[in-house]
Amino acid sequence: MTIPTSIQWKDDELIILNQQKLPLITEYLTLTTIEEVYDAIVTLKVRGAPAIGIAGAYGLASAASRYETEDVKQFHRLLQKDFDYIVSSRPTAVNLMWALKRLLASSQAATSVAGAKAALLAEAIIIHEEDETFCKKIGDYTLSLLADKTNVMTICNAGSIATAKYGTALAPFHLGQERGKQFNVYACETRPLFQGARLTVWELQQSGVDVTLITDSMAAHTIQAKGIEAIIVGADRIAANGDTANKIGTMNLAILANAFNIPFYVAAPSSTFDVSIQDGADIPIEERPAEEVTTMNGQQVAPLETKVFNPAFDVTPAKYITAIITEKGILEPDYVESIGELFGVYSKQ
Amino acid sequence: MTIPTSIQWKDDELIILNQQKLPLITEYLTLTTIEEVYDAIVTLKVRGAPAIGIAGAYGLASAASRYETEDVKQFHRLLQKDFDYIVSSRPTAVNLMWALKRLLASSQAATSVAGAKAALLAEAIIIHEEDETFCKKIGDYTLSLLADKTNVMTICNAGSIATAKYGTALAPFHLGQERGKQFNVYACETRPLFQGARLTVWELQQSGVDVTLITDSMAAHTIQAKGIEAIIVGADRIAANGDTANKIGTMNLAILANAFNIPFYVAAPSSTFDVSIQDGADIPIEERPAEEVTTMNGQQVAPLETKVFNPAFDVTPAKYITAIITEKGILEPDYVESIGELFGVYSKQ
Repeated sequence: MTIPTSIQWKDDELIILNQQKLPLITEYLTLTTIEEVYDAIVTLKVRGAPAIGIAGAYGLASAASRYETEDVKQFHRLLQKDFDYIVSSRPTAVNLMWALKRLLASSQAATSVAGAKAALLAEAIIIHEEDETFCKKIGDYTLSLLADKTNVMTICNAGSIATAKYGTALAPFHLGQERGKQFNVYACETRPLFQGARLTVWELQQSGVDVTLITDSMAAHTIQAKGIEAIIVGADRIAANGDTANKIGTMNLAILANAFNIPFYVAAPSSTFDVSIQDGADIPIEERPAEEVTTMNGQQVAPLETKVFNPAFDVTPAKYITAIITEKGILEPDYVESIGELFGVYSKQ
Repeated sequence: MTIPTSIQWKDDELIILNQQKLPLITEYLTLTTIEEVYDAIVTLKVRGAPAIGIAGAYGLASAASRYETEDVKQFHRLLQKDFDYIVSSRPTAVNLMWALKRLLASSQAATSVAGAKAALLAEAIIIHEEDETFCKKIGDYTLSLLADKTNVMTICNAGSIATAKYGTALAPFHLGQERGKQFNVYACETRPLFQGARLTVWELQQSGVDVTLITDSMAAHTIQAKGIEAIIVGADRIAANGDTANKIGTMNLAILANAFNIPFYVAAPSSTFDVSIQDGADIPIEERPAEEVTTMNGQQVAPLETKVFNPAFDVTPAKYITAIITEKGILEPDYVESIGELFGVYSKQ
């Protein structure tokens, strides 16, 4: 039993797990050109905000290592061009932009091309290792919250394969497995794209965690029938007041947790907070194509020409969130205060 | 634009809509032998408790019409045999048993085979017409509750094709359409078997009702983003205290309605009540095969050998139900009292 990871840097090559082929085929791809990295991001072969950032960083460092110029200015022009190219693979991915900017900054001080190349690779490796450390810390903090709990529900895949290792919401289950703490995890399938059924079930099975699949519609009955003691989810973006954007279906679970009086936890690195946004009303919700709902592998489920509403995310109001678990610690309400303290933007009157 | 129906009795023949082929193929089947009726029920070509009861009744009357004996006792022996056969097609369907028993009773008084044959067919027609009348009454009552509302959410298919005509939860939308009242209906797809996507969307499109498909996981966000003003569902069984068993996912919606402070209505004929059951805890929940969740048209969604929890129903606690709408009127809390009065088992102290 091994915790699966989706990104490896080995013998100066980027190797990714092809998440498009999961769960039936476990295929690893070696990406040698920057075009291959771009394509892997666009076609969702690599997914999960932290994992995309890491893959993009290695992609850029790897491409730069092959520039043949010895002129530093020329080197930085080439680097900027590849930076723009990789960023365009997922322009809304905050984490990708953040990682690539760190690389650019790391190479600014270099006075030789060799130095710049080394700095870029060093920064990519730091971002990769840092993410694993952060996820492990999130897992540690979450294990302390779940110390007396066994039956936990989750949605989507805030997992090891979406990060460097361990994941965010799934970190306590992997860490628990390493330390002999057994959970019974209930994974919501996560319509329309089945990240729960395809990825979370596979990932937890790989590391030996007891996982049971349910449809999203079974959440309330399962909480009751199986004695679910907590729900834990990841996050795409967290506003200054704690309102949390995450995969569509997350708000349903938060409201159910509240109704059944069980804790609802959000697990995410501090880079997920966007304190420039006051509350969830200002978080834009992407709507995706109708075909994701009306078809399955090309087969029609609903009538042709069916009108569909297909929001990719929802925003869980902070009032339903028991705690937000970051690598820097556990935040509790009042979130305006605890998040403000974390980012130094809040001072008690 | 026509309200689709799933059962016709025409020129002494039973014609059913093949619901297995929906939504892409609209196929009608003429069932001539009792074996064909049995098969149509077993293979879900006809579905929905009232529709199964009606089809079973016509099937039995039709089979009996071809018995060649002139001996009344012999006739009843043959009838009992076919009764047992048809009941075995869906032994847990309360409605099927109820309809077939009405047929048996109707023919008891006949002193000739011809009289018995006529009585059986007459009773089948009465059951069919009565169900349409009941559904229309339910629709009328529900329209009065929805008088100032436009945006309504539903789950599964408590529709015209599950009954004689109009349906229960969908009756107000069809009736409204006939009377110039326009609704915006949001249909939850209803995993795992997609009755919402396959049947409700198709049915409402046929009668010209504005219907939008969402996944079950989108319910909370849709209530908020689209201003849903009420949720209405059907029922499989209602206990003496109002606790209501219905398609899995119904309880989720009831809890969301409560959280968003919008009414949650159950629409069902009075034959759905089982006042021998005190509360929902005594309603058995059928669990169905894992493959319904892990595969789609034979294609694997989740890993092979995935552990699955697949309950077919959930039980919505009465406290979340704003009103139960029957052909006899609208019941409101306290349900022990209002249901008791309906069935004459309750008397005020």
